[in-house]
Amino acid sequence: MDRWIQIFTCGGTIDKVYFDAMSEYQVGQPQVQDILQLAKVTIPYQINSLLRKDSLDIDDSDREMIRKAVETCSATRILITHGTDQMADTARCLHGISGKTVVLTGAHSPALFVGSDAQFNIGCALGAVQSLPEGVYIAMNGNVFLGDKAKKNRSQSRFESSDS
Amino acid sequence: MDRWIQIFTCGGTIDKVYFDAMSEYQVGQPQVQDILQLAKVTIPYQINSLLRKDSLDIDDSDREMIRKAVETCSATRILITHGTDQMADTARCLHGISGKTVVLTGAHSPALFVGSDAQFNIGCALGAVQSLPEGVYIAMNGNVFLGDKAKKNRSQSRFESSDS
Amino acid sequence: MDRWIQIFTCGGTIDKVYFDAMSEYQVGQPQVQDILQLAKVTIPYQINSLLRKDSLDIDDSDREMIRKAVETCSATRILITHGTDQMADTARCLHGISGKTVVLTGAHSPALFVGSDAQFNIGCALGAVQSLPEGVYIAMNGNVFLGDKAKKNRSQSRFESSDS
Amino acid sequence: MDRWIQIFTCGGTIDKVYFDAMSEYQVGQPQVQDILQLAKVTIPYQINSLLRKDSLDIDDSDREMIRKAVETCSATRILITHGTDQMADTARCLHGISGKTVVLTGAHSPALFVGSDAQFNIGCALGAVQSLPEGVYIAMNGNVFLGDKAKKNRSQSRFESSDS
Repeated sequence: MDRWIQIFTCGGTIDKVYFDAMSEYQVGQPQVQDILQLAKVTIPYQINSLLRKDSLDIDDSDREMIRKAVETCSATRILITHGTDQMADTARCLHGISGKTVVLTGAHSPALFVGSDAQFNIGCALGAVQSLPEGVYIAMNGNVFLGDKAKKNRSQSRFESSDS
Repeated sequence: MDRWIQIFTCGGTIDKVYFDAMSEYQVGQPQVQDILQLAKVTIPYQINSLLRKDSLDIDDSDREMIRKAVETCSATRILITHGTDQMADTARCLHGISGKTVVLTGAHSPALFVGSDAQFNIGCALGAVQSLPEGVYIAMNGNVFLGDKAKKNRSQSRFESSDS
Repeated sequence: MDRWIQIFTCGGTIDKVYFDAMSEYQVGQPQVQDILQLAKVTIPYQINSLLRKDSLDIDDSDREMIRKAVETCSATRILITHGTDQMADTARCLHGISGKTVVLTGAHSPALFVGSDAQFNIGCALGAVQSLPEGVYIAMNGNVFLGDKAKKNRSQSRFESSDS
Repeated sequence: MDRWIQIFTCGGTIDKVYFDAMSEYQVGQPQVQDILQLAKVTIPYQINSLLRKDSLDIDDSDREMIRKAVETCSATRILITHGTDQMADTARCLHGISGKTVVLTGAHSPALFVGSDAQFNIGCALGAVQSLPEGVYIAMNGNVFLGDKAKKNRSQSRFESSDS
């Protein structure tokens, strides 16, 4: 069965939680598992946490590690949750891995916030990763972009085509 | 631009609201628009309400009307929100329309409930409808099924492959 | 310690849930326990379910049973969750029980709905029941009414003073 | 009419929001207005923002300003939203204002988080402030404490009696 999904989590806004005891806000446990369970997802998947960082803090060696994880995992369909600020950079770094469909997603607002886009975005990425041919993609704001054709518009908190 | 999405709404659990003034619970306004706005969806779409029925009440003439709407609309990518109980029947009725990608989805719990699967499912359907070749599909429980290969398992409130 | 709270639940909108397997909507388990746990309530309380009915279906014998439960319980502070349509009738029936502070509350929208008033109303009733002298009160819409001075305005889904 | 409520907001966790554009988390607009509107509160109230600070940053001059606002406002019933870390200190500073009932509340989790205690706590404080004789109180965790008898247990994220 080639339709099982490997999910790699890399931190980012989607996983940010609030710790009252410290009056602060940190990248916490990956939220994707709770989201998939709430939606009673029946397609087989496996989740591995690669990083727990704000995406502003992701560097080239992190990206190399992510690329290696994608190349060496046995799945052909891979969903990656990632901070939004450097998602496009990581997508470019994954370019050219053959035989695999990779979809990156994340959220502009933490999954635990009322009205977060996290549930929607994970759903969108999961629908896309099952349906697309090999390649690297970004699923954000309801749009499935080619991985090297998207950029974050920071002031609008949304992704846009990098051609426009 | 061939990537705009036509969305047809047909009622069902996803759109059920509670009317305190009547102490009852009815199919209300389509929820898909609020869901897409909350997720700041930027891909172009148009929403038309075809039916506002519990899916148990959908009959063959309703299905004919839905088929005609799909055939005659100018879009090549169509997302349909529909009650879960007869979603598979409507999917079968849409079989064989050429040149169009049609994805049906809905929810096991009203969109306005805490913990509803509606946001996730709409996201999943939107990711799939952009990514798939022509044909009819059902996106439920994180699974993108061929339209004639899915059935609802009522006691478990989930969709399964009809081959199993 | 006289500050522990007896909570009696009588059904009503606050406890309505949606059963997908039957495509219907019924009075379910009392929600007040989950609400108190989520708010990490530390004041001691005990919950007993007296009725699980839509308030439209509550009759005089139900009210007699509620009155007896209030009179015979050992607590002096009692919070009652109740459907909104006949809350004022039940409040009147509880008139004249000496030595006890009784506050009725409920919700215009089920506790499990996004944006429900249930959490707020339970909080308001709990704040009032600890603070008021003996008597019967209704805590709805942020207002603490004397039990014989409130009525539901059905078209507006809110409680008003019955003097106005 | 002496039952209108003056609400003063002082920032704190309850008002913390997440700013994606800066990947950070700050004290934002007071949330109490949205909470009161969602609950369709009909008792008259007026909201004024005094401070927009994390409570760790509140100092004695801030507290003097809060005390002056309470003393000089025309209302006899005052609800204050405040960060939890120094709520007990501010309560002590308000001690001895005659002719006024003052209730402080806040939240252990931002109002915009799923499962926040903010709605419940605001409800509890509003029920208490209408019902209590003059004095200063803290309404947290479903408990209405005398203002000089409560302290935050930071590791448990809850308020306790300072006598225990």
